[in-house]
Amino acid sequence: MAALLRREGPEPILRRLIDELRADFLRWPEFDLAPRLASHSAGGVIELMPIADAQLYSFKFVNGHPGNTRLGKQTVVAFGMLADVATGYPLLICEMSLLTALRTAATSALAASRLARPESRSMALIGTGAQAEFQALAFKLALGISEIRLFDVDPAAMAKARANLEGHGLRLVCAHSIGEAVTGADIVTTATADKTRATILTPGLVEPGQHLNAIGGDCPGKTELHSDIVARARTIVEYEPQSRIEGEIQQMPADYPVTELWRVLRGDAPGRVGRDEITLFDSVGFALEDFSALRCLRAIAGSGPGLDIIPDPNDPKDLFGSVFSPGVGFEKAA
Amino acid sequence: MAALLRREGPEPILRRLIDELRADFLRWPEFDLAPRLASHSAGGVIELMPIADAQLYSFKFVNGHPGNTRLGKQTVVAFGMLADVATGYPLLICEMSLLTALRTAATSALAASRLARPESRSMALIGTGAQAEFQALAFKLALGISEIRLFDVDPAAMAKARANLEGHGLRLVCAHSIGEAVTGADIVTTATADKTRATILTPGLVEPGQHLNAIGGDCPGKTELHSDIVARARTIVEYEPQSRIEGEIQQMPADYPVTELWRVLRGDAPGRVGRDEITLFDSVGFALEDFSALRCLRAIAGSGPGLDIIPDPNDPKDLFGSVFSPGVGFEKAA
Repeated sequence: MAALLRREGPEPILRRLIDELRADFLRWPEFDLAPRLASHSAGGVIELMPIADAQLYSFKFVNGHPGNTRLGKQTVVAFGMLADVATGYPLLICEMSLLTALRTAATSALAASRLARPESRSMALIGTGAQAEFQALAFKLALGISEIRLFDVDPAAMAKARANLEGHGLRLVCAHSIGEAVTGADIVTTATADKTRATILTPGLVEPGQHLNAIGGDCPGKTELHSDIVARARTIVEYEPQSRIEGEIQQMPADYPVTELWRVLRGDAPGRVGRDEITLFDSVGFALEDFSALRCLRAIAGSGPGLDIIPDPNDPKDLFGSVFSPGVGFEKAA
Repeated sequence: MAALLRREGPEPILRRLIDELRADFLRWPEFDLAPRLASHSAGGVIELMPIADAQLYSFKFVNGHPGNTRLGKQTVVAFGMLADVATGYPLLICEMSLLTALRTAATSALAASRLARPESRSMALIGTGAQAEFQALAFKLALGISEIRLFDVDPAAMAKARANLEGHGLRLVCAHSIGEAVTGADIVTTATADKTRATILTPGLVEPGQHLNAIGGDCPGKTELHSDIVARARTIVEYEPQSRIEGEIQQMPADYPVTELWRVLRGDAPGRVGRDEITLFDSVGFALEDFSALRCLRAIAGSGPGLDIIPDPNDPKDLFGSVFSPGVGFEKAA
């Protein structure tokens, strides 16, 4: 996976992903949708995220364990699968930690392209962990963002993001506080990992006309924004039933109004309606984004070697004999 | 997987699985349970089956497509995973088509050991597809079944099962009708695949004292028994919320009484209470069985090579740099 992505380069992949995502969001009603299935424990969450259209089924396994980095492990790892709806057979099984970071950034940029002010040029990036560089590049591509203001409580993480983003045509600023990063920024992206009700942004920091891209709050009890900010913003979500449980809007009453992204992309609901409006993309990550990413990967990778994870007995009713009877045997899976 | 199972042999694995399943069913309240998440289409169903205790998380991907055998493909293929609850990291990813057949048979035999008459010696096996031989051997091991009466509408499938079961110490009879197979049998196992409301057993065929092991009816609209049989039987299920949707009892009123298997195994609810009682194990397959099977496999296989499906950047916050920045790089996953 790493070799494949390196060969393509991050920006071409992000560009392609943004296009795939747009196309799939536009045909939203064709999908069989469900909120992801989460298993919570003291240290984190493990989730399964399935979705299907009439041809393809996909799911992703993904965790979220904020304490992992202290063990030298990643907060989020993932893998996933595409399967054929007609037969139920797997078509592609792959690592998705990298794809998750790419598709999250591509979705953020896609949303911002309809929600941020068209002349936006600067973005504050609060939380410079594993997702940060992907976000910066996606916003450069989709919106023409040219300045990134980095901030993280961990100076090493900030230096890491800065170093990785050098040479990508962005003006990079390491801020000394959240306030310094946010003040005057056109867009504010929050990508922090604590599994708590954090308040990364307080109401006094947010300026009229800013677009907020909140990607770090993504499970029950994990939020990043003060509820007064959410109350002031027009809020766009991916899939309302899931976002009510997991998003920033878990802080809000059940009738707090939100709009699903696909409706904005289709023009059924407005994007930004005024220069001074505060817009919020309350992103938690939805299965459709993984579906798009897996399909995109399949196209980039071409048809690889056959999956040897599925038994293929010569007689499909003879599973037992294919293993335990001499001379029956397996074919190699096609 | 095939080589591993062949090395161990089917009967030792089944014996071990029965023990693992009993141990896990006995600690049922320790598990985080949920009905499986199903995606239905015209040709079949694709399901995700997650479960966790405080240490381990498992899930299985599994399909059910009755038309697949006409394409030379199997009705059911599966793969699954064990993960570490503390970090969310995968521990084991593997094929589960074979494990599914093994654990289904082991669960059936475990249930029958408390529900069939102790002196049971003969079993009718209706439907001799991919599951059949596993069922026959599990019942031999757990109950001392010595005679298997086979019936299938497909004579080739019947001959296949007979040939595979030769040499396993069982008296094998190919019946000419369901009635011939069932009459006088102590146990009747139905393992048919049609995704319809089939009536494999009619009330006139069932005899007092028989134990019915119905494993083929396992999704909405897919049943094998006439509802009058279910009404007469004392019915044991794996996990009631899932069985109400998927089992034979989907034909019954919502207040039709059932008992969960773990309660019988713990002695909290009675097994068979009379010689003439008709008992029914209305099995649909539950995530706990896959959990037990994966744990059992892990013990048999020993610690294999590291899983290279998860990126392991030198700096866990530097996912981007590990792929796209020269000189940062991955460690190989431990």
